[in-house]
Amino acid sequence: MTTDYSHLLVPSETIGSYTIDQFIEAATQFHGYAAPGLVLGGFMVDAAIKALPDDILFDALSETSWCLPDAVQMLSPCSVGNGWLKILNLGLYSVCLYDKFTGHGVRLWVDLDKIDLDSEIRTWLLKNKPKQEQDSPLLRRQILEAGASICSMRDVQVKPEQRIKRSKGTVVPCPICGEPYPAQFGAICRSCQGESPYLDNLGTDIMPEPSLVATPVEKAVGGQALHDMTRIEPGVSKGPEFKYGQILTGGDVCRLQRMGRSRI
Amino acid sequence: MTTDYSHLLVPSETIGSYTIDQFIEAATQFHGYAAPGLVLGGFMVDAAIKALPDDILFDALSETSWCLPDAVQMLSPCSVGNGWLKILNLGLYSVCLYDKFTGHGVRLWVDLDKIDLDSEIRTWLLKNKPKQEQDSPLLRRQILEAGASICSMRDVQVKPEQRIKRSKGTVVPCPICGEPYPAQFGAICRSCQGESPYLDNLGTDIMPEPSLVATPVEKAVGGQALHDMTRIEPGVSKGPEFKYGQILTGGDVCRLQRMGRSRI
Repeated sequence: MTTDYSHLLVPSETIGSYTIDQFIEAATQFHGYAAPGLVLGGFMVDAAIKALPDDILFDALSETSWCLPDAVQMLSPCSVGNGWLKILNLGLYSVCLYDKFTGHGVRLWVDLDKIDLDSEIRTWLLKNKPKQEQDSPLLRRQILEAGASICSMRDVQVKPEQRIKRSKGTVVPCPICGEPYPAQFGAICRSCQGESPYLDNLGTDIMPEPSLVATPVEKAVGGQALHDMTRIEPGVSKGPEFKYGQILTGGDVCRLQRMGRSRI
Repeated sequence: MTTDYSHLLVPSETIGSYTIDQFIEAATQFHGYAAPGLVLGGFMVDAAIKALPDDILFDALSETSWCLPDAVQMLSPCSVGNGWLKILNLGLYSVCLYDKFTGHGVRLWVDLDKIDLDSEIRTWLLKNKPKQEQDSPLLRRQILEAGASICSMRDVQVKPEQRIKRSKGTVVPCPICGEPYPAQFGAICRSCQGESPYLDNLGTDIMPEPSLVATPVEKAVGGQALHDMTRIEPGVSKGPEFKYGQILTGGDVCRLQRMGRSRI
C-alpha cells in the first residue's frame, strides 16, 4: 500500500504552530542561528507530523546529525535526552516519525528530482560552491518559498532492532573513579577503560602509581592478573577475558598470546 | 592548578534564567515531563556555565545520553543539531563545558560521596529499587533541595581528537537511491549499503530484481563484478575493494577469497 502524501508536500506559511518569523526567532534561540537546514527541517517535520494519525505516540529518527535533529526537538516532544529521537548518522537529509508501538510511520527526504538545476538549494545541498560564495539570502528565500515541496514522503516500517527500548540495566559505582555507571559496560566504567575524553583522566589522577615490572607472558604462570585484560573478536565479542586477581595457568599463556600480549 | 568551585556547588532557587517552577514547565514542554535527571542536569549545567569565563564560546560534552543532553540544550546555545553539544555515551551522569578554541573547561559529575546513604537520590541513581517502588515526590523534593551540592566539579582539558570539527566533505547523489550523501561514506550511501533502518529499504524497492546465479570465485576470472564488494580490516579500513563493473583477474581470486568470498 502506498499512501499519497502530495497534499502535505506544498509550500506553507507556517511551521507547526509558528509563523515563519516566529520559527526563525525560535530557531535562533535554540540553535544559535536560523540555519537553512533547520528551516527546511522545520517544514519537513511539520509535514511528517501532519501525516501521522493524531492519536498515536510517535518516536523520531533523524538520518543525519546536522540541523534536522533540532527541527524534531523544536516541533515535537521527541528529544535526544528523552530517547524518543534517535540519530542514525547516514548523512541523509531525511527524517522519519513512526508509531512507537507498531514501528509504522513516514519517511520524508529531500528529493533532488524536485529541485531545479540552477536552484541555490541544490548548490547548498551538494556543496557545489564553497560556503562563502553561496548566496545565503537567496537560499533562505528559496527554502521559505519551497517548504516541503522539494521533498518526497513515503510509508515505512522501522526495523524492530531500531525500536528496542534502551535500558541502563544495573548501575554500580566504578571501582576506580567511584562514579555510578551501567554495569553492562564492564568491570570498570568506560572512562576508566580508556574512553575518557579528557587529557587528565580522573582515574589516573587518583590511583596511586604502582611500581610494576612487565613479565614475559610465558613466565607469568602461577602469578596473578593485576588488571582486567580484554579480548576483542571483531563483530563477535569484546569483554574482559582475564579478570583482576585471576591466577594464570599454563593454558592461559596461549590465550594471552593469541590476544596479542607477550608481556603482562 | 586546581580551581575551587565549591561556591558554585550549593543549593539554588533558580536554574539559569528560570525559577524552579518555570524550569519544570519548560522541561515538561521540551522533554515531555520534568524527569528527575533533567532537573538535576539543569542545576549542573547552570553551575558549569557560571564556572566559565563570560566572554568565551563554549562547546558541551554529555557523558550520558539520558536526560542530561536536554538540560544542555535547554540552558545553553549548544544542541546536537548545531554540533556544539556532543554526546559520548559513557553512561556517566556528567557534563563538561569547555572553551571551543582551547579545549579547557570544567567537568561536573554526580558525586556519590556527597549523597546520604538513605537518600532517595541514591536509590534512584543506583536503581536500588524498581522504579515503581521509588518515591518520586520525595526524589523530586530532595533534588530540588540539593541542587548541584551533590556534585563535584574540576578543571579538564578536552582531548584534541574530541574537538575536531565535523565536516561532511563532498556531497554527491547516491547512484542507487539518488539521495545526496557525504561521498566519504562510500561508493553508495550507507542506507543502500545495508544500514537502512527500514524493513522496506528504498534501494531494494526501485532496483529491478536481476536474475543472478552465484559463481564460484575461482571461475569468475574475466567476468564483471555485479556490485561493490567491501573489504574490512578491523580498525584499519573499510571500503569497497571491488567496484561495480570491474573485470576480475586471476590475482583478484585470492583477494576475494581472503575477503571470505567463495562465490560471487
